[in-house]
Amino acid sequence: MKAKVHVMLKPGVLDPQGEAVKSALGALGFDGVEGVRQGKVIELDLAESDAATAEAQVEQMCEKLLANTVIESYRIEML
Amino acid sequence: MKAKVHVMLKPGVLDPQGEAVKSALGALGFDGVEGVRQGKVIELDLAESDAATAEAQVEQMCEKLLANTVIESYRIEML
Repeated sequence: MKAKVHVMLKPGVLDPQGEAVKSALGALGFDGVEGVRQGKVIELDLAESDAATAEAQVEQMCEKLLANTVIESYRIEML
Repeated sequence: MKAKVHVMLKPGVLDPQGEAVKSALGALGFDGVEGVRQGKVIELDLAESDAATAEAQVEQMCEKLLANTVIESYRIEML
């Protein structure tokens, strides 16, 4: 079973990486970039073959390690 | 126009971040994690309203800044 976890900073949380990308794009001559937010995506390859069990397992992984739920939100996609 | 860029290491390129996550998951008691790859996702908010022009612009951004095309592949998703 494969799963993809998307982790993004919550709205309102300052995103210095995104700001850095935005100003670098401006410096390269790309006008009209109004906002940039950067997040991460984690692809997991799981031995578990039952989709529901695997998804519950991935949710636990997100809560415990993959996302900092104080400032980040996550979305799980089972493939 | 909003765009999302997914940047992943190409297959075969060593992913130390993914390996670190994999061993951390193992240490937390999550068995059956066979592989982990970590990538990034960049959300762009563009002033351009024409989808084709915006996509061409984002492709240029990927080639020039957002992805290291020697070791990374990218996928553009227009929202």
